[in-house]
Formats: sequence, structure tokens, C-alpha cells
Amino acid sequence: MRSVCVVGLGLIGGSVLRAAAAAGFVTWGATASDDDAEAARRDGHDVVDLAAALERAVAQDALVVVAVPLPAVENVLRALPGGVRLTDVVSVKGPVADLVARVAPHARYVGGHPMAGTSRSGWDAGRADLFRDAAWVVTAEDGADLDVLGDVIGLALASGAHVVPTTAADHDAAVARISHLPHVLAAVLASVGAGGGPLALSLAAGSFGDGTRVAGSRPELVLAMCEGNRAALLGAVDDALGRLGAARGSLASTGGLAKTVEAGHTARLALEDRPRLAEAAVDLTAPGALATLRDLGARGGRVIGLNGSTALALTP
Amino acid sequence: MRSVCVVGLGLIGGSVLRAAAAAGFVTWGATASDDDAEAARRDGHDVVDLAAALERAVAQDALVVVAVPLPAVENVLRALPGGVRLTDVVSVKGPVADLVARVAPHARYVGGHPMAGTSRSGWDAGRADLFRDAAWVVTAEDGADLDVLGDVIGLALASGAHVVPTTAADHDAAVARISHLPHVLAAVLASVGAGGGPLALSLAAGSFGDGTRVAGSRPELVLAMCEGNRAALLGAVDDALGRLGAARGSLASTGGLAKTVEAGHTARLALEDRPRLAEAAVDLTAPGALATLRDLGARGGRVIGLNGSTALALTP
Repeated sequence: MRSVCVVGLGLIGGSVLRAAAAAGFVTWGATASDDDAEAARRDGHDVVDLAAALERAVAQDALVVVAVPLPAVENVLRALPGGVRLTDVVSVKGPVADLVARVAPHARYVGGHPMAGTSRSGWDAGRADLFRDAAWVVTAEDGADLDVLGDVIGLALASGAHVVPTTAADHDAAVARISHLPHVLAAVLASVGAGGGPLALSLAAGSFGDGTRVAGSRPELVLAMCEGNRAALLGAVDDALGRLGAARGSLASTGGLAKTVEAGHTARLALEDRPRLAEAAVDLTAPGALATLRDLGARGGRVIGLNGSTALALTP
Repeated sequence: MRSVCVVGLGLIGGSVLRAAAAAGFVTWGATASDDDAEAARRDGHDVVDLAAALERAVAQDALVVVAVPLPAVENVLRALPGGVRLTDVVSVKGPVADLVARVAPHARYVGGHPMAGTSRSGWDAGRADLFRDAAWVVTAEDGADLDVLGDVIGLALASGAHVVPTTAADHDAAVARISHLPHVLAAVLASVGAGGGPLALSLAAGSFGDGTRVAGSRPELVLAMCEGNRAALLGAVDDALGRLGAARGSLASTGGLAKTVEAGHTARLALEDRPRLAEAAVDLTAPGALATLRDLGARGGRVIGLNGSTALALTP
């Protein structure tokens, strides 16, 4: 099994370190946070300084997992030795890929994003099973290193996640729609509701509670996530503005909202009634394997197992 | 105790009939639905035709509760004898008040809206405890009949609800913000998410699930509710469009969303951390009692008990 070196031991990095260790990988970590380092050591993990961690990664040909916030990624990349196996768990993929291309072009990089989290942060918020049954996005760009891709898939599966292969651009566009826009709309709805004063809040029930729930998340986490995906989020916000404006126009002119409400209902049913998936095998060494994987992800499929260089997939 | 005649025995009307009967009121009902009538009779309730129900209401000076959908309200009002004690449970209050003024000006009308429901409909979906711990809005307009106001408050409290006094206009503006706009935004979000295709839906997690949940409601119910409150909903949609547009502008120009996200966070905390309420008594026979009640509702207070003509209130 490939050794795993985790840089950044907050909620996500700390959970990756725990999950990898629990799955039997040789693991060690590094973090700029003395608190997280001390807490991880107290829990029995091997935490060293960044230079020592990376030196060991080269010596053992380990997979380096960058698990620091986006603004701190560049400094970690600058410290990387050439040719290292590299992935990350940052919630936006295009900007990280751009940074790798600019700062660490010789790294053998395959991006990742485990879609899990809580509203808490830091080592103590993490747990070994944080990724159980979660989607772990892996970027399968043309030219990706298939060996490292296998490492990342293996780590994700060993952590209890399933793997959704796609590109950085498609990932960022998708999460803008289903993760970042929901936070923006929840904030807008909460503000409009509170604008109705104490009467409105005293009448608020299920629909308002559901629609504003994520507005209770820590603003700095929401901002880091949304602002880090600015370009794709703009597109999603524009889509929402267009649809909301159309609803407004229809309500004002004809008094009707059928098109808006029925489209939303159909869309929600598509979320609830996901297509039945069938098992399929993907030979990662076959020509076009990366395109096959991307197509799998684009159609709503996922990788749920890895046997040598054969991925076991569920496909619609 | 005032006898209660419920017209319309669907989810809400059927629950009012059950709750009133369970609380010991003399009750009977009428409905245009043969299925609901049969089911209510099977459950031991007294169901007669509309003319007989209203005749008995006059004879017993009962409170008539109109519990039919908004488009059917006018026909019920046309059948009303003059001077009858009248309330309703329709989810929009201004249009009902306008209809009463036009079609049944001699009714002793006080509007009501119990803020409870499920996604199901019809008699079989109702239950006696549907209103337990729910807000039951009562319109306390200037000139309202204080005796009927007491009847409606009594029915609401006996059903397990607390009473929020306000005006029809303030009610409609408030529910546009906290009940109807959430449905519109949920529909918009669901459509934007589904627009991302199977990949986006396969990555959707908590925030998208929460934000789109009510888009799963039956479209005809959502449309009846939202379109019935057209004027107030337009104002709420415009508020949302303004805030979403401002977020868009800020994201495009500076890349920042702090104002949007922080305002939403503050608003959500205002929902979660409601002010502590103190007990107070309101003498419903005192001059200005209606204004006192409206002020109570506007400040987020409620009525939780009734002792003769003294209302026990919780006030911020």
C-alpha cells in the first residue's frame, strides 16, 4: 500500500490522516498549527515539520495530500520536491490545478475533493469515518498520471467514499450549482425573512427553516468556499437570477408561477429518484481510460472498488 | 362553548373539525367532496349538506369556519346567512377579507390562518393534533368583532395552537417572505442544480437537499398558495432579486460575498435565537385592545391562553 503524507491537519486533513491510518496505510502528517499538531500526536499520529514530511514522502514514494485552505496551498506547493505524487482535498479544483501548473509543474498531480464536512473545524472536529458513503471527486484530466490516479482512488475507497471522476472545470461548475449557490440563496432568503421583522420570524416554519439552514454555517468557511469558486459561482448565480427574474415577470404579468414551480418539482424528483446503477469494470490501463472515467462521472456514475488496475464502477 | 361548523373537510378543515370535537365543542361539517364526507362520517363526525350546515349554524349561533381552497371561498360566502360568526383557514388573508367585504359584508368575520400542513391532502391526511404548537394567525383589524375574535382565539387555543394577532396585510407580507418565497427559491435552486446534469446531482449533499426540499411539494398546492398571495409575493421576490443581484455584483467586481453571507448569518441567528418572552395579560374589552393585540404580534409575541375576556400573552 502506498504511504500517505497529509499536509494540513484540520477537519478534512485530520480525517484523511485518521482514515488512511485506520485502513492500514503508513501515514504521517505536517501542519502549521501547533494546536492541531499537538492534538494529532496526542491521538497517536506521526506529525513532523513540513520539510521532514516531504523528505520522507520522496524517500518512500508516498502520496502527498495537500489539505490546507486555498490561500495556503501555494506555499506548500513551493516546498514540494519535484516528481512527487500529489493530490489535494481543497473544495475548488480549477484554481488548485492552475497553481500546480504554475508553481509545481513537475508534481505528479491528480486533484481530489471529498464532499464531506461539518460546520466545525480543526483536528478535533475530524474523524476516521467522515468520508463514509460520501462522494470523493477525482480529476481525471487528459494526461493525468494513471498510477497516481490509482493511488487517489485507492485512498478514497479505503476511506469509505465512492469516487466520482470528472474534470476540474466540470467539478467547479457542478459544486457552484449544488453547494455554493445554495449558501448564497440561503443567505438571501434569511435576510428577506428577517426583513419582515419579528412577526415574520414568529410565523416561520418548515420551508423557511429548511431554506435558511446553511446560513447558520460559519461565514468565514462559506466565504472561503464561495469566493474560491468565483468564476463558476457567477455562472450559477446568473442562472438563478435569470430563473427568478422569469418567475417575477410571470407572476407580475399573468399571475402564474406554473413554469417555475413545475420545473423545480421535476428537478427535485430527479434528485430523489436517482437512476438505477449497474456494475461495470473499467480497465485503467486501456486506451481512453481517462475519457471513460470522465464519461462515467458525467452520467452520474461512480467508482466503488479497485482491483489492481481495474476499477469497479456503478454506471447509470 | 361556541358550536363549530366547518365548511370544507380536507387536510386543514378536517383537522379543525377533529381538533374542535376532541376539545369538546359541538361540531358538524359540510363538504363538496363525497369522498371526504364519507370518510368523515366513517370516523364518527356529523356531516350534512352546506345549506343544512349553515342553517344549523344560525340556529345555534355557531362559528362557521371556511376551510375550502381560495377559488371556492366566494361560493361558500354567497350561501352564508347574514350576521353569522365567520372565520376561515385560508393561507392568504387579504383576498379573503376583500371577498367577505364584497360578498358577505354582514358576516361577523375575523380571519384566521393556522400555520400547519403536510404535503398530503384530503380528510384522511388530517389529524386532531395537526395544530399542536403551531402559530394560528388571527386578523385583528380595527372594527373587528371582539366576540368573534374571542371565538377564533378559543378555537385555536383548544386546537393546541398559539395565536399570533396581526392584520391581513401584515400577514400576507410576512408569509410571502417566510413561506411563499422559500417555495419559489427552492424551485429555482432545484432547476439550477438539475441544469448541471447527472454529475451535479450525484454530488449534491446537505445544502442542496435542504434548499430544495419543499420543491418536492405537490405543484398544485404550491401554486394555489403562491399565486393567491401574488401582490405580497411580488414584493418578497423583488427583495430577493435585489439582494441576489447585489451579491452577483459584488462577486463580479471585488470577488467578495461578505456582505451577503454575513447578513444571512445574522438573520439566521435571529431565527434560531428568538427573544425570551414574558407573560402579560390583555383585556380584550379594554379600549385599544385590537391595537394592543396587533402590536403584540408585530413584536413577535403570541396569545397562549384565554380566561373569559382576558388573553394570556407571551410578549418579547
